[in-house]
Amino acid sequence: SRRAMGRAMGLAGVLVGLFLVPAVLVSTSLRHGAPRAEPAPEPAERELASGAVPEDSLWPLPQWLRTSRRQLQLAPARFQLVHGAGSSAGPACGLLQDAFRRYYEYMFGQSRRRRGRRPLGARADPELSQLQVVIESRDPGCHSYPHLASNEAYHLTVTEPVAVLKANEVWGALRGLETFSQLVHEDDYGSFLVNESEINDFPRFAHRGILLDTSRHYLPLKSILTNLDAMAFNKFNVLHWHIVDDQSFPYQSIYFPELSDKGAYSYNHIYTPTDIRLVIEYARLRGIRVIPEFDTPGHTQSWGKGQKGLLTPCYSGEQPTGSFGPVNPILNTTYNFMTKFFKEISSVFPDAYIHLGGDEVNFDCWKSNPEVKEFMKKQGFGIDYAKLESYYIQKILNIVSSYDKGYMVWQEVFDNKAQLKPETVVQVWMENNYAHELSSVTGAGFTAILAAPWYLDYISYGQDWKKYYSVEPLNFPGSEKQKKLLIGGEACLWGEFVDATNLTPRLWPRASAVGERLWSNWNVTNLQDAYKRLTNHRCRML
Amino acid sequence: SRRAMGRAMGLAGVLVGLFLVPAVLVSTSLRHGAPRAEPAPEPAERELASGAVPEDSLWPLPQWLRTSRRQLQLAPARFQLVHGAGSSAGPACGLLQDAFRRYYEYMFGQSRRRRGRRPLGARADPELSQLQVVIESRDPGCHSYPHLASNEAYHLTVTEPVAVLKANEVWGALRGLETFSQLVHEDDYGSFLVNESEINDFPRFAHRGILLDTSRHYLPLKSILTNLDAMAFNKFNVLHWHIVDDQSFPYQSIYFPELSDKGAYSYNHIYTPTDIRLVIEYARLRGIRVIPEFDTPGHTQSWGKGQKGLLTPCYSGEQPTGSFGPVNPILNTTYNFMTKFFKEISSVFPDAYIHLGGDEVNFDCWKSNPEVKEFMKKQGFGIDYAKLESYYIQKILNIVSSYDKGYMVWQEVFDNKAQLKPETVVQVWMENNYAHELSSVTGAGFTAILAAPWYLDYISYGQDWKKYYSVEPLNFPGSEKQKKLLIGGEACLWGEFVDATNLTPRLWPRASAVGERLWSNWNVTNLQDAYKRLTNHRCRML
Repeated sequence: SRRAMGRAMGLAGVLVGLFLVPAVLVSTSLRHGAPRAEPAPEPAERELASGAVPEDSLWPLPQWLRTSRRQLQLAPARFQLVHGAGSSAGPACGLLQDAFRRYYEYMFGQSRRRRGRRPLGARADPELSQLQVVIESRDPGCHSYPHLASNEAYHLTVTEPVAVLKANEVWGALRGLETFSQLVHEDDYGSFLVNESEINDFPRFAHRGILLDTSRHYLPLKSILTNLDAMAFNKFNVLHWHIVDDQSFPYQSIYFPELSDKGAYSYNHIYTPTDIRLVIEYARLRGIRVIPEFDTPGHTQSWGKGQKGLLTPCYSGEQPTGSFGPVNPILNTTYNFMTKFFKEISSVFPDAYIHLGGDEVNFDCWKSNPEVKEFMKKQGFGIDYAKLESYYIQKILNIVSSYDKGYMVWQEVFDNKAQLKPETVVQVWMENNYAHELSSVTGAGFTAILAAPWYLDYISYGQDWKKYYSVEPLNFPGSEKQKKLLIGGEACLWGEFVDATNLTPRLWPRASAVGERLWSNWNVTNLQDAYKRLTNHRCRML
Repeated sequence: SRRAMGRAMGLAGVLVGLFLVPAVLVSTSLRHGAPRAEPAPEPAERELASGAVPEDSLWPLPQWLRTSRRQLQLAPARFQLVHGAGSSAGPACGLLQDAFRRYYEYMFGQSRRRRGRRPLGARADPELSQLQVVIESRDPGCHSYPHLASNEAYHLTVTEPVAVLKANEVWGALRGLETFSQLVHEDDYGSFLVNESEINDFPRFAHRGILLDTSRHYLPLKSILTNLDAMAFNKFNVLHWHIVDDQSFPYQSIYFPELSDKGAYSYNHIYTPTDIRLVIEYARLRGIRVIPEFDTPGHTQSWGKGQKGLLTPCYSGEQPTGSFGPVNPILNTTYNFMTKFFKEISSVFPDAYIHLGGDEVNFDCWKSNPEVKEFMKKQGFGIDYAKLESYYIQKILNIVSSYDKGYMVWQEVFDNKAQLKPETVVQVWMENNYAHELSSVTGAGFTAILAAPWYLDYISYGQDWKKYYSVEPLNFPGSEKQKKLLIGGEACLWGEFVDATNLTPRLWPRASAVGERLWSNWNVTNLQDAYKRLTNHRCRML
């Protein structure tokens, strides 16, 4: 072989995990501060003396857990996921019923099919017969959508003869089911085992997102759904759907069908209203919000194809060049269109937030257009085109507010001093000095989301997950109050070089690093420990 | 979105091809020098006025072709691939029978399943009822292995009512079947069409390889077989199987099972003799040679685990450090082992060539070892460890020669002046001034393979296929005789960061660029034309 790169072997270990049977788990431990509760025991017969512990299989690591070396056996033919006594949710809770089916399949599905050639219960271990799920709130949330204030906390005890998963809302139960399924493992002889454990868990940050970009390359529904599954495995709870951009407009609008008729890559490269509903429901069943982004006034070339007069005509001297710039901010027709368009969006997408973009507005075209210049003069903006941008954004924000929606924006909207509603979420993406930007945004009292260090479309050799993992989001200058205003982050996979053929291996397990950073305790930072767990987690995901 | 990279949009078009129905083909043309034979006609009814021509679907582009705008229709229920009159091959030719089934499936497979909802033959076009395959040589090669001198030329005529594919040997028929299948396309209404055409084709270079590395990451059989399919789509004819290296030894040896028992990543990460036979046969059926590489004396850390005493013990001062360097070249036991080992390899792999590696030998460990130093003195090598390397390699070359095998080696073996058999194939991989190296190797009368510009494990943003495509292999100083000694090239996908999860999207369609460079005429260099064809080809491969 043929070069120094050959020695940067990092990822190999993670990838190899694909083919390794997860080690059998031995010993007892208590996480976070406390030492392991018992000395390392003699490995039980049939167990590998690997020094592995049950939490080696967990990702992201729960906030608090105690595990024991005592193992219980699960018999797939008998084991049940059930609603526990006193739960406010029952068989009418479609969301939980669906989750029960799904997690049963994850835990036993593949193996069940190879079964039949050996008797069940050959081991002498005591049996775990049920996982009882108890929802404690009077309103479990079975038929609602997850939202920023959803309660994702849960408490899980695994002891003979039944395990109990308690959560205030179904959203916590979903997270707990994922954790429980991660604890269950199959030994070399096909027995399913779980260690007696107790886990108390809740997310560190409320907004844990993945950005997918379906404009640069169209993503078939299947890719989006597969990604929602992966998100659930990593306890992500927001799909930031960057659905349209300069390159294409795949969103099929009900009021303005020409936008996708003319702006999509083809008649097939669209998301119909049915597709959108399917994504939203698939996400809801996994406790994931869908926040659509309709980015204006820049990044709108594809809008112009189906909506004549929307974009600013660019000029060379006194002649229109025939090309177009950002949305034309000086026309009433623009705002009439946006009013109707965002009315539709507000009703199609149930989430309380819409992402309005507002980034990377290029002023050249505005500067070239004589009518825009005239408007600038009339408004007293001088030659400060950031003021024109803010003028436009302000009107869009007001339109969306009138539909009772909150909004997210990219950081430029804050930087350019648009008047924002207090609950506005400002997404910080510029890598240069993002800590300072977080400080400014929260210092001004706004809620912030961090994306800057997690642009996963950037590629490199080897284990870049460590870089993503080592980010401490709260490491910016600010008061306690300011720190509370940072509500989470997003891993962003821009679509210039990503489509259905490479999305999954490019995004996962790299995004898992962001998932643990946003869920687990701030002090969960050990890279060796993370590597071990991430290896097992990747294998399980595959 | 959020950065200048966003404007480097290149790949998007190629990727979008995934979802586009290939354009319907119109017009007539003759490739290579001649102008189009007819003026562009009015597009026929039901045809898109796209200006597309039949050869837009071909990859790699044939050496000579003439196409017509006259279309013939194929009825999947009636169309047959058959042995033509006078062919030396018949139904007993399993290789062709298998290829007939395979290409029928490629052409009609998917669509046949969605059939039934519309009548066949709704179009008025004349029908093409058969492709008759005629093998002209007395020995068609049905039961032999492809080799360096295999004849891959073919002649294809597509006219009503039958198409005829003539080839001297089955290897040419395989290439012609691929070309024929590329000409057949489905229109928007589900009809299968082919334009009347004549194609005369043969490869520019005899050795067109893909290197896969199964040591840094194990590749499951399925990945290797899928890759062989992709190779056939691109008329590659050599799988250079870099099967073992420092990191792991997945080859299960019959004589020395401990090599993989101890040197593989696990008991499951191996290739059994049955696996190897399967790969070789799957490749043979596609006209692909399998050249295994067993790289010594460097890159052998994994060998040391199962073969004690094989590697050189490294010293720090007068003490062994416990670590090991390259194969120990001073012991008789080394050569006894290699004699037996390569006897096995020579019999397991039918190809006339074995790749013996010989690259990147680090001398530090040899220099540290007092017995090696003593040996150097005795041999009169002074402190020139390249001489010791050549001493070792020479013995290995002699062993392998004694089994009637030819060998390939990396360029260092030539650079270090080992005595090579005249038919030795020297693989040039060092990127720095590879033209000069080609000049030296061929100037010394040796056969050369070019790999240096085609290291596809290097990653970057956007359309790097253009870089691979723009290489002209014969662009090195040398006589006509020297140019003839460059027999081909290889696209190399080293495995540091590649496993089953990302192999296919990383290798294809980037390697297709190398495929066309090695097959098509030297003057097929137009990037716009290639882009158009590659887009269709990628779509078809997907």
